[in-house]
Amino acid sequence: MMTISPLSKNTLAFIQAKIDNKTKPLGALGALEPLALQLALITEQRRQRILSLNESTSHNVSQISIKNPSMLVFAGDHGINEAGLSIAPSSVTKQMVLNFLHGGAAINCFCQSNDIALTVIDCGILQAVSHDETPQLSNDILNNVQLIEQRLGAGTKNFSVEPAMSITQVKEGFEQAKKLIDTQIEQGVELLLLGEMGIANTSAAAALMSALTSYSVIECVGRGTGITDEQLNKKIALIEKALQRVNGLNKAENYSSQEGILTLLSEVGGFEIVQMVSAILSSAAASIPIVIDGFIVSVAALVALRLNQNVANYLIFSHVSQEKAHQFLLKELLNAQNFTPQPGQPLLNLGLRLGEGTGGALALPLIKAAASFYNNMASFESAGVTV
Amino acid sequence: MMTISPLSKNTLAFIQAKIDNKTKPLGALGALEPLALQLALITEQRRQRILSLNESTSHNVSQISIKNPSMLVFAGDHGINEAGLSIAPSSVTKQMVLNFLHGGAAINCFCQSNDIALTVIDCGILQAVSHDETPQLSNDILNNVQLIEQRLGAGTKNFSVEPAMSITQVKEGFEQAKKLIDTQIEQGVELLLLGEMGIANTSAAAALMSALTSYSVIECVGRGTGITDEQLNKKIALIEKALQRVNGLNKAENYSSQEGILTLLSEVGGFEIVQMVSAILSSAAASIPIVIDGFIVSVAALVALRLNQNVANYLIFSHVSQEKAHQFLLKELLNAQNFTPQPGQPLLNLGLRLGEGTGGALALPLIKAAASFYNNMASFESAGVTV
Repeated sequence: MMTISPLSKNTLAFIQAKIDNKTKPLGALGALEPLALQLALITEQRRQRILSLNESTSHNVSQISIKNPSMLVFAGDHGINEAGLSIAPSSVTKQMVLNFLHGGAAINCFCQSNDIALTVIDCGILQAVSHDETPQLSNDILNNVQLIEQRLGAGTKNFSVEPAMSITQVKEGFEQAKKLIDTQIEQGVELLLLGEMGIANTSAAAALMSALTSYSVIECVGRGTGITDEQLNKKIALIEKALQRVNGLNKAENYSSQEGILTLLSEVGGFEIVQMVSAILSSAAASIPIVIDGFIVSVAALVALRLNQNVANYLIFSHVSQEKAHQFLLKELLNAQNFTPQPGQPLLNLGLRLGEGTGGALALPLIKAAASFYNNMASFESAGVTV
Repeated sequence: MMTISPLSKNTLAFIQAKIDNKTKPLGALGALEPLALQLALITEQRRQRILSLNESTSHNVSQISIKNPSMLVFAGDHGINEAGLSIAPSSVTKQMVLNFLHGGAAINCFCQSNDIALTVIDCGILQAVSHDETPQLSNDILNNVQLIEQRLGAGTKNFSVEPAMSITQVKEGFEQAKKLIDTQIEQGVELLLLGEMGIANTSAAAALMSALTSYSVIECVGRGTGITDEQLNKKIALIEKALQRVNGLNKAENYSSQEGILTLLSEVGGFEIVQMVSAILSSAAASIPIVIDGFIVSVAALVALRLNQNVANYLIFSHVSQEKAHQFLLKELLNAQNFTPQPGQPLLNLGLRLGEGTGGALALPLIKAAASFYNNMASFESAGVTV
């Protein structure tokens, strides 16, 4: 596993003083102030890591730098959908991947309107995109969507009856996603946003959440995109059945070891979830902030957190959905952050329940605004304001 | 007074069908969906008004158009601050106006990061900005802040002992702001955002809110930027005293007539509030959506609504602050909107309490995102998605 440094708080008092001396009443920018603090701490951490400086440079803290924001949408299919748990058949995952590639989805609109580069990663949808299906590149770079193939298989197996994938596949997914993140960072990306697409991936996410928290399966399962009572009950029953099998294997250790968590991922995870867990760990290891989207990405963050608690302070929570399970999960994730003051709540609460990374893309302007006021706003002295 | 057409709902069903047929589960974009509906209805209204078409063109609804968003920050000083109601002396209003002109305030950062043109209107700060104090224009248009002088006086009078201004000043303010909005629209502005600066303007706003709603003065007064208990109690007492005087004049009619409301504005209003009321009415009359910021701008919207209830559907509420009074006020304003489904809540809830238009500027990317998904997202048919 990667080494993730705990977020250093050496410069916290200086950063907070800089925020407090901006031309505004104390705290008047609300949640943007702790967000700016977090971004400044992370930037400082990255700068010190890059310069290999160990001495404190606290009197001269850096500007926040979050250049080249990059949205990575991880897609995968789920064998458990053969039980008809979703409103849609698994073939819709690929149809939506093609929609992303042709620029027609919500995530395309929001990435374009907020200047975010968009990459779709095929982690193992049922059928790969063929050459004929890939659109021609346009001259406008923001209209282009990059497709990367890191397929771990043609959909996972039905985890209600057998493991979703092998441990080898989990490890391969971890390696591939780490390489992807390393490449992104080499290309100058300083902020990552994660999104996902995968029909029935809420089932895998709910199973992981229930296994890794004190919440029951019923508490971790929601209506998703609008399933019936019958589908909901079947979904709960199948997840409970799977967790009984898995708990039989792991009872003694309760997922407190790295090995236990990797086993859990192989048993009930998804190809896109596995790669997102690794993407989160790899970004945090490079002191790059990671913007978390809805329920599925938040579950990937939870798994990453259980593998390495230092990941918590590198996460930015973009939105809370109306799903109760997402609200519980965010509480768990936010509680793990330990710089003070910290945001304590996601940035947006718009009733979104689409996934794709849409919450993250919509929150980016607020993240940029936090950086902008921190970097550019005048101090009381420099502006001659005498409050 | 201007004529404001009620927002036509002729095309509502067609717009809603267009939203529902985008490649996403029904309602999955949460609050952005009714916002897109509102923007589409307003755009359609404007198009029909411009074309002077009265027949329904419902089968061919327009794309949303919100080009050249423009932030107007109205500044004024308040005589009542001689009682020391604020954390800051009135001279800070001008210091902040100079900070705006030199690009150092929060509103500068947020307008620049979200591509919003910024204009500051001196509606009557204590001392006008002199030629020497105006910065040189830069080549980067988004770095430039335009200053417009529409001074109604050198600060209002102390409304706890006498009327803040004359009816003539109110009418002059209305005319000047109307001309400003007409000019903005001629220059191609299709979305207006309002902000304000004025030390002690929460006192005027609280007085107006209490007079125009069933809320008591205590319920309309908050801590603002952080005053003491003593200041708070003094503020409540002075506003109550003023409203007793004003209610004596108006008892019979309870501000239900245009004349009564103009009198109320002259008694306890502010120069910037008067001009914002007119700006809101003028924008709505031209079918231009208006983005409402915090408490003070929301009070201006309330006054505009009492003058003409048709204004309601042209308002977009950017954020709710932690001030109880703002929450009450927004409930009142949102209840007046009557297209269905409508947003029902402001876009952001970030604990902002700065004013200046910062909430509006921060919400603009969400408004653009709503327009973008409406205009650009694929339909199920066009994308070949078979849910």
